[in-house]
Amino acid sequence: MKLNLLLTGNELMAGDIIDSNSAMIAEQFKYFGWRINKKVTVGDDLALLCEEIDQLCTSADVLIINGGLGPTVDDLTAVALAKVTNTEIAEHPDALAHLTQWCAKRGYGLNSSNHKQAMLPKGCEIIANARGSAVGIKLKHRGCLIFATPGVPSELRPMLTNEITPILEGSYHSDHIETLRLGAFGLGESAIQELVNEHLGDWPEDIELGFRASMPVLEVKLTARGELAKTKLPLWRTKVGELLGDHLLGELPISLPSATVAALKEHNLQICTAESCTGGLIASQLTGVPGASQVFPGAIVSYSNAVKHRLLSVSEADLAKEGAVSEAVVRQMALGAIASTGADLAIAVTGIAGPDGGTPEKPVGTVWIAWGTADQLKSQCFHLPFERNGFQNWVAALSLDLVRRYILKLPEGSELMKRYQR
Amino acid sequence: MKLNLLLTGNELMAGDIIDSNSAMIAEQFKYFGWRINKKVTVGDDLALLCEEIDQLCTSADVLIINGGLGPTVDDLTAVALAKVTNTEIAEHPDALAHLTQWCAKRGYGLNSSNHKQAMLPKGCEIIANARGSAVGIKLKHRGCLIFATPGVPSELRPMLTNEITPILEGSYHSDHIETLRLGAFGLGESAIQELVNEHLGDWPEDIELGFRASMPVLEVKLTARGELAKTKLPLWRTKVGELLGDHLLGELPISLPSATVAALKEHNLQICTAESCTGGLIASQLTGVPGASQVFPGAIVSYSNAVKHRLLSVSEADLAKEGAVSEAVVRQMALGAIASTGADLAIAVTGIAGPDGGTPEKPVGTVWIAWGTADQLKSQCFHLPFERNGFQNWVAALSLDLVRRYILKLPEGSELMKRYQR
Repeated sequence: MKLNLLLTGNELMAGDIIDSNSAMIAEQFKYFGWRINKKVTVGDDLALLCEEIDQLCTSADVLIINGGLGPTVDDLTAVALAKVTNTEIAEHPDALAHLTQWCAKRGYGLNSSNHKQAMLPKGCEIIANARGSAVGIKLKHRGCLIFATPGVPSELRPMLTNEITPILEGSYHSDHIETLRLGAFGLGESAIQELVNEHLGDWPEDIELGFRASMPVLEVKLTARGELAKTKLPLWRTKVGELLGDHLLGELPISLPSATVAALKEHNLQICTAESCTGGLIASQLTGVPGASQVFPGAIVSYSNAVKHRLLSVSEADLAKEGAVSEAVVRQMALGAIASTGADLAIAVTGIAGPDGGTPEKPVGTVWIAWGTADQLKSQCFHLPFERNGFQNWVAALSLDLVRRYILKLPEGSELMKRYQR
Repeated sequence: MKLNLLLTGNELMAGDIIDSNSAMIAEQFKYFGWRINKKVTVGDDLALLCEEIDQLCTSADVLIINGGLGPTVDDLTAVALAKVTNTEIAEHPDALAHLTQWCAKRGYGLNSSNHKQAMLPKGCEIIANARGSAVGIKLKHRGCLIFATPGVPSELRPMLTNEITPILEGSYHSDHIETLRLGAFGLGESAIQELVNEHLGDWPEDIELGFRASMPVLEVKLTARGELAKTKLPLWRTKVGELLGDHLLGELPISLPSATVAALKEHNLQICTAESCTGGLIASQLTGVPGASQVFPGAIVSYSNAVKHRLLSVSEADLAKEGAVSEAVVRQMALGAIASTGADLAIAVTGIAGPDGGTPEKPVGTVWIAWGTADQLKSQCFHLPFERNGFQNWVAALSLDLVRRYILKLPEGSELMKRYQR
């Protein structure tokens, strides 16, 4: 199958947004052995769009168009498709039904902007959009199958997976590619590459090994091409897993919060958090996982010292003497949170996110973390040299990994933890 | 100046990396009024590269090629350029001097991989690379000026700024573009388009109006081309601002949390949150804003009923009778949070994020929000039909906007609020 891609949008040409959709499409299609031959991006310009659609169709079996299906005047994909295929734009009954339902569900009538989204090239088929108002368009031109898809990533993804891929799968053989993606935390990309070079020198040629740093989890991807390679995949997955050791979280999609929630469920434990510098980020990540209510009764965000004292019973004397960012305070925060939420375990964090508030002894990036049960509470100081939001994300990631290791009785120290320890 | 862009690299086509270079080029050139007309991306395929270079040159004054200048066998840009321009590949003395110096500085001799980078189309000029081994290439084909640039962003940036831009500035007048980007919340893209159609029918041709839904904030962008347009920009910015009314947050970069923190600072108020279904997300968004500590003492994440009772003094009888997702409970949560954190205002939320936990009367997506001071506490029920994380994000956005409106004494009801109100 020869596949071309056409992206449209002034915001893409102007550099206002970075295109991640084409990577999403490539990732998804790669699994089936379908590779993108050529990708063209143009702004919201009707003449240019028409020219490109026509040209890209002559050299491909399939053309995916992304963007330009919205309700505003600069959304031109439907009009361009009609022009190129020499048809009219007409109200599409299925699209209209979808839009009417879409608006009704949200409690308002169809306005003329939304109605525009039902005006499609006569005779085209529509592709369902489970997440948004813009339906996709399917039609043929010069023997090339065209799919027009929405530019909003959260709408594109399900349309690709649930609608377009099955259609293409019916028509085009896959090259029998199989992919395995593992998630790891606490090891850098180059450290893993070193480990592989050192221990897996006999890596087979027909299995591709790739890495992608997708903060905070590192993705390790094994791609087997061909039937023979597929049979070898489990063995090499095991070998890579052994190499990653306790840094391995599991197969993707997995995240630190979901791995932590899974560990808590497995051991029938509940956790709470007491957060200063992360301001509720850890709690919010945990409760982003479906079913978190089973393992998470609640949290206290104690940004001010008064709240640390009032809600977590942190001693005012220690706050004054040791400072809010101290071992004494972080341990009392953890104990206070366990006492008031009734959880088995706590994560407590107090640190200096910046940009202000640092001192020579406690520079911006300093954080105390406490984790564990009331009886067996651990605590450690780290220095994480990142800007405010990066710092908050790293504190959350480190804390969750420390607790995950604690619950699963794994060694405390990931490579990263050692690097940032104070 | 008509400008085309050609990106090359298998990793770009496979979706292994997301292209940020073209956004960098667009951003940098936009300042001078140079827009990219068309952008093509292909893999490391000599035939395809030659075809595209040739074609892109016929329709442009300038072609920027990015990638394919490295030392490995899959770096094909120099060879493709030689082929297209019908010249030989030859050792370029300036390039060789740069490479020799480059290697010497790093304490090793020129190897054959690096030497490959000195083999360029005969007669081309080189562009200095201050950061890497790969020199850029400058030549003409079919009257089009071609610049071949390295794919490594940190090498591309100084080459663009210090080498290529001055060359282009000498040859091409700037169109004097000015851009203004506003952030709005609570109005859909189609609703804004309707408003513009209705009220600003006399929109000037030389100011471009664009929209981008960047959940939850909608971006409205005004681009003025030419000196005359620039003088009109303030007037039309005001007109659009009036149209957006109280949905306008301000000029970008702005977010709902930062707008809320700004409003709190302006009125010298402090806020706390009591969160059930959002699990700390609102607190975490507020504390993501630098300087949030001034306006935010803390929060309670009361996921379990026990914590709602214990930490927020929610009546156990009401929890049993009305249920956790109820007006009585959300109001008590808000009052409890104000009492224990000492803040002036609270946001409290309790709802059903799903995927489980819905009932016919309270389906997944139902949420009660309370906001305001203890004396003047508002509360409202909404139904937000989104999956778990989308739901949590919308609850956070709506809550922050309700509080922002409350503080600034704006009307309560955004379009979105009315849409989702129960």
